[in-house]
Order: sequence, then C-alpha cells, then structure tokens
Amino acid sequence: MSERDATDFARRRFVKGVGAALTVAPLMGDDAAAGSQMNDTFLKACRGAPVDYTPVWMMRQAGRYLPQYQKVLAQTDFLTAVRTPEIAAEITIQPVDIFGVDAAIFYSDITTVVVPMGMDLRYSDDKGPSYANPVRTPADADRLIVPDDPADGLSFVYEAQKICARELANRVPLIGFAGAPFTVCAYMVEGGPSHAFSTYRRLIFDERAAFTTLMDKVSQHTANYLKAQAAAGANALMLFDSNAGLLGPDDYESLNLPYVRRILAALKDTGVPLIYFGLGAHSSLAAIRDCGADVISIDYGLRLNEAVAQLGQNVSVQGNIEPYVLYDSKAEIRRRVAETLAAGKAARGHVFNLGHGVPRYSPVDNVKAMVDAVHELSQV
Amino acid sequence: MSERDATDFARRRFVKGVGAALTVAPLMGDDAAAGSQMNDTFLKACRGAPVDYTPVWMMRQAGRYLPQYQKVLAQTDFLTAVRTPEIAAEITIQPVDIFGVDAAIFYSDITTVVVPMGMDLRYSDDKGPSYANPVRTPADADRLIVPDDPADGLSFVYEAQKICARELANRVPLIGFAGAPFTVCAYMVEGGPSHAFSTYRRLIFDERAAFTTLMDKVSQHTANYLKAQAAAGANALMLFDSNAGLLGPDDYESLNLPYVRRILAALKDTGVPLIYFGLGAHSSLAAIRDCGADVISIDYGLRLNEAVAQLGQNVSVQGNIEPYVLYDSKAEIRRRVAETLAAGKAARGHVFNLGHGVPRYSPVDNVKAMVDAVHELSQV
Repeated sequence: MSERDATDFARRRFVKGVGAALTVAPLMGDDAAAGSQMNDTFLKACRGAPVDYTPVWMMRQAGRYLPQYQKVLAQTDFLTAVRTPEIAAEITIQPVDIFGVDAAIFYSDITTVVVPMGMDLRYSDDKGPSYANPVRTPADADRLIVPDDPADGLSFVYEAQKICARELANRVPLIGFAGAPFTVCAYMVEGGPSHAFSTYRRLIFDERAAFTTLMDKVSQHTANYLKAQAAAGANALMLFDSNAGLLGPDDYESLNLPYVRRILAALKDTGVPLIYFGLGAHSSLAAIRDCGADVISIDYGLRLNEAVAQLGQNVSVQGNIEPYVLYDSKAEIRRRVAETLAAGKAARGHVFNLGHGVPRYSPVDNVKAMVDAVHELSQV
Repeated sequence: MSERDATDFARRRFVKGVGAALTVAPLMGDDAAAGSQMNDTFLKACRGAPVDYTPVWMMRQAGRYLPQYQKVLAQTDFLTAVRTPEIAAEITIQPVDIFGVDAAIFYSDITTVVVPMGMDLRYSDDKGPSYANPVRTPADADRLIVPDDPADGLSFVYEAQKICARELANRVPLIGFAGAPFTVCAYMVEGGPSHAFSTYRRLIFDERAAFTTLMDKVSQHTANYLKAQAAAGANALMLFDSNAGLLGPDDYESLNLPYVRRILAALKDTGVPLIYFGLGAHSSLAAIRDCGADVISIDYGLRLNEAVAQLGQNVSVQGNIEPYVLYDSKAEIRRRVAETLAAGKAARGHVFNLGHGVPRYSPVDNVKAMVDAVHELSQV
C-alpha cells in the first residue's frame, strides 16, 4: 500500500507514532470514549471471527529494547515500576503508541503474583527477580497461603489495568496475564534464575507431595488473580508457561496441563478470550488443543502449518516467527512475515506474534518494520 | 531373573561392581586380551543387528554424582582431569566397573577441542568452562585457525583413549565424541555458560558471514578430531548437539544440520557407528533421519514410539527416559524402563539411554537399579 494509505491505516487504529510523549496522555472524557470504536481485530481473531487483516502484538513488546522504556527505568527500579500503577500503565501503552500493535500486553512480571502467598521477592540488576525463601520441602509448601481476596497485596495490578483500560478504551484491547502454575512454581522452588531448573525437576520426582501442594495452591491463587484482572478491564487473558518444556510429554500432560485446564475452566465465565503459551511442549499439541484456551500460542520450535494441522479448527493460533530475525534485514523480516502469514491462513484465526519474547537489543525500526509488514501483507 | 542369574549376567559382562578400586587397573597382557571377547551388544544395536538384550549407557554416566569421581576431582581440578590421560581414562572406566553399562563414554568436555584453533579456555568452579576471547565479529572468526594435525594440542585425548581402549578391550566399546559445531560455536560466541544464548542467536542473524566462517572452521576441525579418535581406539563416535533447539526447524535444517551431515560423511570411512543427538530439534526428525548417523539419540521431549515412527528402519535409536526419574523410587524407575523398552522395540535397533545427562545428585543405587532393570527386562 502507498505511504498515504499506510498513514490512514495507522490513524484508523489511533496510533500516535514513534516519539510519542512519555507521560501518560490525559484521560479521555466519557464523551470522547463513546465517540469512537475500539480496534477489536485481535479479539475477533482470538474467537475465529472474520478480520480485515491479521492482528499483531509481540511478547515482551513493552521492554528493554525500547528507548522510551529505558528512560522510565532509568528513573526507578524494576519492582517499583511494576508496582506503581501509573508507571506500569505507561510502559504497557508505549508499544501501542510506537508501533500501532493491535493489543497491549500488561507490563508486569510473573514472579509478583505469589508474594501475597508468602514469597519474599527481591530484585537485583544482575540476577533479576528472585525469592529469598524458596520452596524446597513439604513444610515450605504447606506454609504458603491462598489469599481469600486476590486484591490483597496485588491491588497495584488492578489499579494499573484500570488506567490501561481507560487509556486504551478507544484504541486496542488489553491482555492481562499470569505465569502458568508449573512455570511460576519453577521460580518458587529454584529461588532465582536457573539454566537447567535442576532443583525444581528433582523436587517434582522426589518430593511429589510438596510439588502437588504447591501446584494446587498456586493454581487456585492464579485463577483468582486472572478473574480479578478481567474485572479490572483486561479484554483477554494469557497464561505464560515458559517452562512447559522441562517435562517430557507424558509428564507434562499429567503433572502440568491439568492445572492449566483447571484455571482456564475457572476463567470461562469472564467471557474474555483465553490464550495459552506452552513453550517447548512440542509433543503435546493434541492435548493442548483441548485445554480450554481460545488461542494456542506456538513457539518458534514448531512449524506453524504443522501446529495448525494438529490443533484443528476449534482454536485460533498465535505466533510464531523466529524472534532473532529482528536482528536481520528488513527484507528478510518481510519475507518471513509473508511465510508466517501464509502458514497461519489455515487456522481458525491467527494472531501474529513472535515465537518467544522480543530480544533485548532488537532495533526499534525493525520491530516497526515487522508490525507494518504484518498489517500490509495480510490485508484482504 | 533371580539374584543368581543377575550376578552371572553381570559377571559375563566383566563388571567389577560398586566399590571398584579407584586406581586404573593394571593393564591386561595381550594373552589375557586375546582370551576373551568384547561385549559388543551396544555396537550390534547401533547397526540394527540382533542382540540378546537391550544395551544401556547413560549420558554423563562418568560424572559428579559418583563418589568415585568426586574423590578424583577432590585431588585435581576439572581441566587437569580432562587433560591428564590416566585420569580421564580412569573416570571413563568408572561407570563400567560400577554399573556394568554396555559402553563407556569418553570423559572429556566439548569446550576443549577448539583450544588449538585459538580459543583461550578457562575454568572456574562456579561458572564452569569459559573462553576469555569469545568470537563476536567477522575478524574474530577469521583469526581462528584449523590445525593441520588434529593431535596439535589435543594429544591428551588420543592418549587417554588408547589407555581406555586397552583397558576396555575385553569388556565394552568406547564411545568417542565431540560437540556438534552449532553447539560448540554457541559457547565460543557466548564465551561462557548462558541461559538464553542471546549473543549467539543475535550473531547468527546479524553477522551471518562470521557465523558461516566459524561453523566452517569448527566443522572441519571437528571432523579431523573425531577421525583421530577412531584411530586412537574409539569404537563409536557421537556428536552432541545440546543447543540444536535454539533455532526453529527451517533454520536448524539450513544453518545447523548441513554441517552435521558434512562431518558424518567425513567419518563414514572410519567404519565405526555414528550417533547424533540433537537436543530440542523436535520438528526435524524427517531431516535428521538422513543426516548420515547410524543412531539417532532422542531427548526426553519426544515420545520414543513417535520418534521411531518418523525415523523409520534405516537408523537405530538411542534414549530416551526422563533423567530426573532417577530421583524417584526404584519401582517407578522400573515401570518407566519397561515402558521405554516397549517403545524402543519398533526401532531397527535400540540403545537404552537417558533423554539427557545423569542429574548431578542422582542416587547411585537408583542408577544401578535402572541399568539392572534394562538388562533384566529386555532379555529375549
């Protein structure tokens, strides 16, 4: 499409463009909100409804590769950013302003949710988030509490989402999220970042009771947490299971997936689309298909067309371009976008995304080129 | 089988049993060697020939979970152990003595091979092996040399293998190995251990020429290195591609696998069975099938029966039990051994192994229980 068409296209989706003001824009009045229509292309694709083009957002789109994000984080620390509603909302909205993505993913961290359960979360610049009191024994698991009120200790999340929802009301949907319990428990057991997660994997096999208690409690709390996010204004909910590949397929299906199913079943009543991302669970698509999610997010380790063939027509797919191609040329990005769009065509619905998060030093103009290519090449 | 049968079975395979002397046993004279026959069950299974039972060995079977290994390493440091032929041979043979496994895997580290190319290898107890001069630019890749003589700087490997071959001549085969080039290059670029290998993955996409130069040189050197191992007495050769899952299937097949194929083609003349282990390359079995290996090693992320169905009858399989089940009960280990043996039956040949390395704190008696269960339950 011509430059003019592209500009109009972007304007229709209320994009402010690169270089948008860093401060949170003044809230729109009810009249303004009532006067325009949210771009719901993302929500339609999640449900398999017809769309005019393929919607796109990116995992970790609100993050360290953005100068605007770096500027915010230069003035505060990570946990303060996550826990201050105005800052979290501002960071959440940045990529919508900058790239014109079709959904905002709430800026937070999967480690915060279990603090009200009794986990002592710390942060250091070199190690990232860690817990000072990791779960290693049945007694440790027994001590954890499931708060009756999901707002206890987590109100900053819902406050931030209310700001986001208000700010985004006439633009794009907000995706709320949590880590899947298996992935959150991995960090609770390891205490900090880990390469092999060997302490966790050992506990699963030699302290099964502790593992089960832990998974039960975290699942219950996570379901409450996500319900509260929908109530606060999240228009879709996503479970990130970045450690799903730590178990082989049979163990994944008996020790991890049942908890995912339980949470998704509890969220059915919210009415918002549910997304599941099981990174590395390559051999369990037939089981994942029926986990209760509306959208299955596919990592870069699978061919999208093969995944679609296994998932069938009752779910939409999200993904799955190689994230590191963002370091390649714009021509190569465009070539791969076309390839991914072609593969996604066979699905009930396709939400374009990366196969994992945006790499840390991705050139901003390449991210923009990818988003633009998706919009341009997918128009019907 | 009865305890007596089991004892005889073990004796037939020249097992010394747990608690074998730590010092290298005195070398057998030629007469003694001539008087008995090597247990070649492993080699037969690699080639798809009939066997009396399923052979078993374990990745990282010579390692930190063994008190006998810890005792050796208490008296020396890691790099000295790897570089001293008598010590490397002693550690290589330990699990044959202790467990009666059907093959010895040479004790070494995949990082040492590229030192003669110009890499400055260091070791620290907390970080493990690392390079002080990582490859980050085309100039860095250009500077690396491919030694004409694979013995230059690596004679300790072949010396150790000669000792092993002599010591093991009437017992079990010796497996020589190297890291696959893609995996070795990952460490050369990162410089040290990494969780996400983000520097490497970036270089692959934004410095393609440097990546290609690096892969070319490492592949050429690795082929020479493995040929020399066969000449020194290795009875089989294995390529460990632990980082194969860092790329999606199409990139894996165009940027990694061609180098594996090139190396395996160069090793055909050695006449020894060739094994390839591509950890995480779950979507590329159809391509891996034709890579030139006699045996495809399958990680725990795939169901063995599904892998066998894709690999067909021109290759044998190795694997693939969940390694962390070694922390579970002996009954559960036995149950899973039976399951894995059943799945392996459909293959041309099956070498029992873990889906990845022996975990660091595995109970020695559970490792023994697994080896015994394989031997007992697989007898025809």
